[in-house]
Amino acid sequence: MSDAALIDRPTDAVTLIADMGARARMAARVLAAAPSTVKAAALCAGARTLRATQAGILAANVDDVAAGEANGLSGAMLDRLRLNPDRLEGIAAALEAVAALPDPVGEVIDESVRPNGLRLSRVRVPLGVVGIIYESRPNVTADAGALGLMSGNAVILRGGSEAIRTSRAIHAAMVAGLAEAGLPEDAIQLVPVTDRAAVGAMLRADGLIDIIVPRGGKSLVARVQEEARVPVLAHLDGLCHLFIDAAADPAKAANLAVNAKMRRTGICGATETILIDRAYPAATDVILALIDAGCEVRGDAIVQGLDPRVVAASAEDWDTEYLDAICSVAVVDGVAGATAHIARHGSHHTDAIVTEDAETAERFLAEVDSAIVMWNASTQFADGGEFGLGAEIGISTGRLHARGPVALEGLTTYKWQVRGTGQTRP
Amino acid sequence: MSDAALIDRPTDAVTLIADMGARARMAARVLAAAPSTVKAAALCAGARTLRATQAGILAANVDDVAAGEANGLSGAMLDRLRLNPDRLEGIAAALEAVAALPDPVGEVIDESVRPNGLRLSRVRVPLGVVGIIYESRPNVTADAGALGLMSGNAVILRGGSEAIRTSRAIHAAMVAGLAEAGLPEDAIQLVPVTDRAAVGAMLRADGLIDIIVPRGGKSLVARVQEEARVPVLAHLDGLCHLFIDAAADPAKAANLAVNAKMRRTGICGATETILIDRAYPAATDVILALIDAGCEVRGDAIVQGLDPRVVAASAEDWDTEYLDAICSVAVVDGVAGATAHIARHGSHHTDAIVTEDAETAERFLAEVDSAIVMWNASTQFADGGEFGLGAEIGISTGRLHARGPVALEGLTTYKWQVRGTGQTRP
Repeated sequence: MSDAALIDRPTDAVTLIADMGARARMAARVLAAAPSTVKAAALCAGARTLRATQAGILAANVDDVAAGEANGLSGAMLDRLRLNPDRLEGIAAALEAVAALPDPVGEVIDESVRPNGLRLSRVRVPLGVVGIIYESRPNVTADAGALGLMSGNAVILRGGSEAIRTSRAIHAAMVAGLAEAGLPEDAIQLVPVTDRAAVGAMLRADGLIDIIVPRGGKSLVARVQEEARVPVLAHLDGLCHLFIDAAADPAKAANLAVNAKMRRTGICGATETILIDRAYPAATDVILALIDAGCEVRGDAIVQGLDPRVVAASAEDWDTEYLDAICSVAVVDGVAGATAHIARHGSHHTDAIVTEDAETAERFLAEVDSAIVMWNASTQFADGGEFGLGAEIGISTGRLHARGPVALEGLTTYKWQVRGTGQTRP
Repeated sequence: MSDAALIDRPTDAVTLIADMGARARMAARVLAAAPSTVKAAALCAGARTLRATQAGILAANVDDVAAGEANGLSGAMLDRLRLNPDRLEGIAAALEAVAALPDPVGEVIDESVRPNGLRLSRVRVPLGVVGIIYESRPNVTADAGALGLMSGNAVILRGGSEAIRTSRAIHAAMVAGLAEAGLPEDAIQLVPVTDRAAVGAMLRADGLIDIIVPRGGKSLVARVQEEARVPVLAHLDGLCHLFIDAAADPAKAANLAVNAKMRRTGICGATETILIDRAYPAATDVILALIDAGCEVRGDAIVQGLDPRVVAASAEDWDTEYLDAICSVAVVDGVAGATAHIARHGSHHTDAIVTEDAETAERFLAEVDSAIVMWNASTQFADGGEFGLGAEIGISTGRLHARGPVALEGLTTYKWQVRGTGQTRP
């Protein structure tokens, strides 16, 4: 592809992403060696610029919202898109919070000295170039840029068309922060076009982009996982279970069931299926508590017998992530029945047990093969902030590299450093 | 696909791999909970069976070698294939060595207590099902099976047709070891067919196989990396560099150059390109030492001026992994010139600096973006055994999950365990 072609067809997606990827790689080399204080200074300067340019960002957002209304965006999507001074202050404060996190880069994971005197260390280094593909939430531009930068990675952001004016305004503030700290502006790049071809080019940019993080609804994540040649860090489903064991404390059980299901029904850590041990004596209280909280209960034959308002569950219910005030409830035979149900229907995200029996709990924690397993706690805690990671780029249900909430450390890898005194191998 | 179809077409590769994958997943659940002592006992029993069935294994190997000779296999391939009592004893001893390694499963990576009292731990767990695709080395059947088992993974082995009789005999001994220890025989499965369709089915078995490790030549690895939907742990190239800085000790420099290049020219950690600082005063000694050791030297204009036997390097030489007694040598401007050359031509495997200047060395160790970076040591040390890992399943030049020599820990991931007392999320 000649330069002329690039100029003639500025939206040629493969060329565009190749160019952005090459510039990101150059920036990543600088970032990998950047001191924590400089990375943090860039984020704090970005936060200051966000506040200083608030009027312009909000004006861009008004234009996005107006275009969204004209294009018939749903009320929920418009709400996600809409900024106000409070929300913008939240975005600026989040940048400062990431700046205050401990920098994982340079951490010595382990060290050893070999009998021949070679000194080995495994040292944490950035992954390189991270691609973020997201939809209409404008805060992702700032959050993902910040997590990428603080972990020493260059990022390529591809935001949705609905929020593109807002994203550009926020991105400009981030870039101003980079410039103020003396870091390369290519460290945080925003794809200038919003056609789907750019997403396709990013997904196939192996060698240019080291990892892709999709942030958005299930259809976005499914497309990314299906088409990507670049490794993907994500979860498709959050079909979380809460198992109430025979030895559960009844007050905890009802409380946890309502919180795990109903606190926020739309998040990936929300419980979708509650499993109740056949020997648990207070099952009716759990069902009543859910119904009182406004939850539709879909149950098997036994659960239907507990209250006339329980709807019959279909076979699909056990595989359904409602993300709504609906819960499927099944009676199972002990912890073995629960783990078998979860192995068959779960999504390896978050699953919890309620019990006062430590042995049963430890068996559940060991046997359930999910990124997060919990004992006497609400599945709604599945979140990087709640885990003390300070933030999260996402939650991974993949098995490799990083699992569960992923923050700065998940955006790093390691290298082996070997220090010798002239040793040759016999 | 009905059972009848499976019986009628036993080599229907997708059906075959799906069936093996499902059985491996069941076995993996048992292995994940198996105590270290039981896994070790299975390997030691396998080693005993290998010794007890030596005559049968060597007879199978004689058949493979005869077939290979009839099919015109090269002498090098026949040598790799051929077993004798010593080599078989080496395979048995390697099983016992893996059995003696520390078990990574169950290791607590980190722990914390949240302000709300939730106790979090990240605990190491097996990856699940590991697929190994290899060529004619019969020892891989035992080595890969052992590393998979000790790290709690079920393995699906697909060995090359040249060694299939030998692989089956070794596999039978491993399975006898599993049975003796009471572990599921499906923990180590050998694909019964050797057609290429089985490889293709393994590479696309996402959800059934968690990771693929190709062991073999570049064409095998290239095909696997190109076609795989399952994540791959491997390296394609080992284009390793040795940089001799101006402040190098001349004796160390010549010694390390000869060892890094010539000790064994066919391994991935062998140096292919030597970079010499323009200010290094003893470049001629390095060239003479290489030529004296039987190495063909291909150099740039300056290097050609050092000795008439130096051949002119072409542009391709800087990107060539010779795996032979040939070395490309370039003069560069200091550590910056060296790191720029490596960034452009390296394969992110292993690169080394020779210098007495600690500051220059640390700059090289920080800036060179390779899985292994070395100071005053031979690149030939790039090996799991030499790194104290006890063994290796391979060396990864990928950036995610595991980098450099990969042994037991690289075949694990982690889960988050959360222990509470009834906490609900506000």
